[in-house]
Amino acid sequence: MQIKKIGEFGLLNRLQQRTKISDPSIVQGIGDDCAVINFGNGRFLLATCDVLLEGVHFNLRYTDSNHLGKKALAVNLSDIAAMGGAPRFYLASLGLPPHLRLSWVDNLYKGMETTAKENGVSLIGGNISSSRTIFIDLTVLGEITPQEIVYRHGASTGDAIFVTGTLGDSALGLMALRSRKKIKNTSALRRLTEKHLSPSPRIREGRFIAANRIATAMIDISDGLIADLKHILKNSNRGAEIWVDAIPFSSEVIRYSPLYRMNPTDLALAGGEDYELLFTVPRKKLKQLQRLSQEFSLSVTMIGKITGEKGKIHLIKNDGNPYLLRREGFRHF
Amino acid sequence: MQIKKIGEFGLLNRLQQRTKISDPSIVQGIGDDCAVINFGNGRFLLATCDVLLEGVHFNLRYTDSNHLGKKALAVNLSDIAAMGGAPRFYLASLGLPPHLRLSWVDNLYKGMETTAKENGVSLIGGNISSSRTIFIDLTVLGEITPQEIVYRHGASTGDAIFVTGTLGDSALGLMALRSRKKIKNTSALRRLTEKHLSPSPRIREGRFIAANRIATAMIDISDGLIADLKHILKNSNRGAEIWVDAIPFSSEVIRYSPLYRMNPTDLALAGGEDYELLFTVPRKKLKQLQRLSQEFSLSVTMIGKITGEKGKIHLIKNDGNPYLLRREGFRHF
Repeated sequence: MQIKKIGEFGLLNRLQQRTKISDPSIVQGIGDDCAVINFGNGRFLLATCDVLLEGVHFNLRYTDSNHLGKKALAVNLSDIAAMGGAPRFYLASLGLPPHLRLSWVDNLYKGMETTAKENGVSLIGGNISSSRTIFIDLTVLGEITPQEIVYRHGASTGDAIFVTGTLGDSALGLMALRSRKKIKNTSALRRLTEKHLSPSPRIREGRFIAANRIATAMIDISDGLIADLKHILKNSNRGAEIWVDAIPFSSEVIRYSPLYRMNPTDLALAGGEDYELLFTVPRKKLKQLQRLSQEFSLSVTMIGKITGEKGKIHLIKNDGNPYLLRREGFRHF
Repeated sequence: MQIKKIGEFGLLNRLQQRTKISDPSIVQGIGDDCAVINFGNGRFLLATCDVLLEGVHFNLRYTDSNHLGKKALAVNLSDIAAMGGAPRFYLASLGLPPHLRLSWVDNLYKGMETTAKENGVSLIGGNISSSRTIFIDLTVLGEITPQEIVYRHGASTGDAIFVTGTLGDSALGLMALRSRKKIKNTSALRRLTEKHLSPSPRIREGRFIAANRIATAMIDISDGLIADLKHILKNSNRGAEIWVDAIPFSSEVIRYSPLYRMNPTDLALAGGEDYELLFTVPRKKLKQLQRLSQEFSLSVTMIGKITGEKGKIHLIKNDGNPYLLRREGFRHF
């Protein structure tokens, strides 16, 4: 049997099942946004690794190395944000073709360091191999207190479902980069493509949600709202109702989706790479969240609620009718 | 300018220089076998990452996936050993072609887990991407007390230079795998190829050396004795004298080097991938090392001494004449 039959999650599950965790310091192994280790200093260590691979995650035709460096770190920081953690350190494992220009690599480094500085993260280790195709594989270490940490599990029936920011921008930005049809408004084009080429990890929002103990479960949206919501539902043994007309969109997504024959809702549900946070909030915390998000001007939007129907997701329009989705999230295999 | 002009270490130096370390928790950043972090619990966290890349570090023609899994973890554990540390956790970032057989991947997992179990390490995280060529990129976390840790710097003039085990086996094993000329003694062939395909990380030896505070500096031999000795010399601002006739060889290397037109000394000095430990010992600790290594049956051999001649390495034969080396260690670019 070939591995494409069982897919990325099938392969990860197999790896996880083979691994018998006997070390009592491991609070959370494979199966959440980060691994969580209790190092016995009153704080948990968070660890996560993610790779950007040429031809799979990026295309040099429309990706410069400065953006690439920023994004490689941002997608990892997003996993730290999804636990509510503070990122601290990163290690870089790079595969680079020998004929690559030194200026290209310098800009890659510059991109990584820009995002590192913005988020208070320091490079502590690395290795570089010659490789036919480029890869940038980073490991990020962070920390959080045991009281603050938010997992994918923990959502309860009746909890409200929230997202940060707006959804669909990254997917539309990618379409704009790939397509010959061009958006003429250059600042709109730039906002969309920037969201794809160098997303901002929601570290501040994640820390805020964790420190105020607002969420029962949290994940970052890397594979599309539906695909990532499924992880929360699976780990929490719950279902969900999503009010598609409540999903927040940028004005660019609303205006330019039709140019690429897309609708904003599909982009949000199945597009992926938004790197916004998706989290669940018990009813009794809703007022606190509303008050705090205004006070600290955090962009959060309620888009549905958790139900007791295990594994089921109902997409519902304002008129009460179901919404039909055309396709789900990104698949590796 | 193309990056092959400045090479792997040039690229790493550039990356290191760009990085301004301002975080006081970082005891050691890029530039040793592991990064060292003070997490404030009386122990240092060690972190290292290393990748095995198809076509660069291994060839599927003579590498099965079980050996590959073992080696991918072993080369990382070797970096923990080189600091004297105890490995604890690892994360795996895998790139796998979609058409790969599931049984191949299962054996890769099995290999990683075998080496993990042998060394008390637990898998805590991972991701899997579809990739044209296979890569296995692992990050290992370990720990050590501040009192025990051994760096690349710290060697003093007059210190004796030691290695664990025997050298050159891995390089000869690789030649045996690649060449049409076959060693007829199957158990000898197996010992050599095993040393190349799944080297044993010297965790026990590293811990022993660190816990007894025997060494002033230490590194693992991944790129050949000369190349790795240079790191100790550079970081310690010293030179060295290597007594080539004292270098320890296995009976297989002595017997079968001529079959591949090699001599054991060249294999040891420039071969690489032995993953033995190279360390320096002050004179006053020599008796202690001798006594302890006998008591605990550790294989360690004195092969030279540290000199004050910065950056210089003299290779000396038993008759006092210099030894001329044909080529140095493995180069990535």
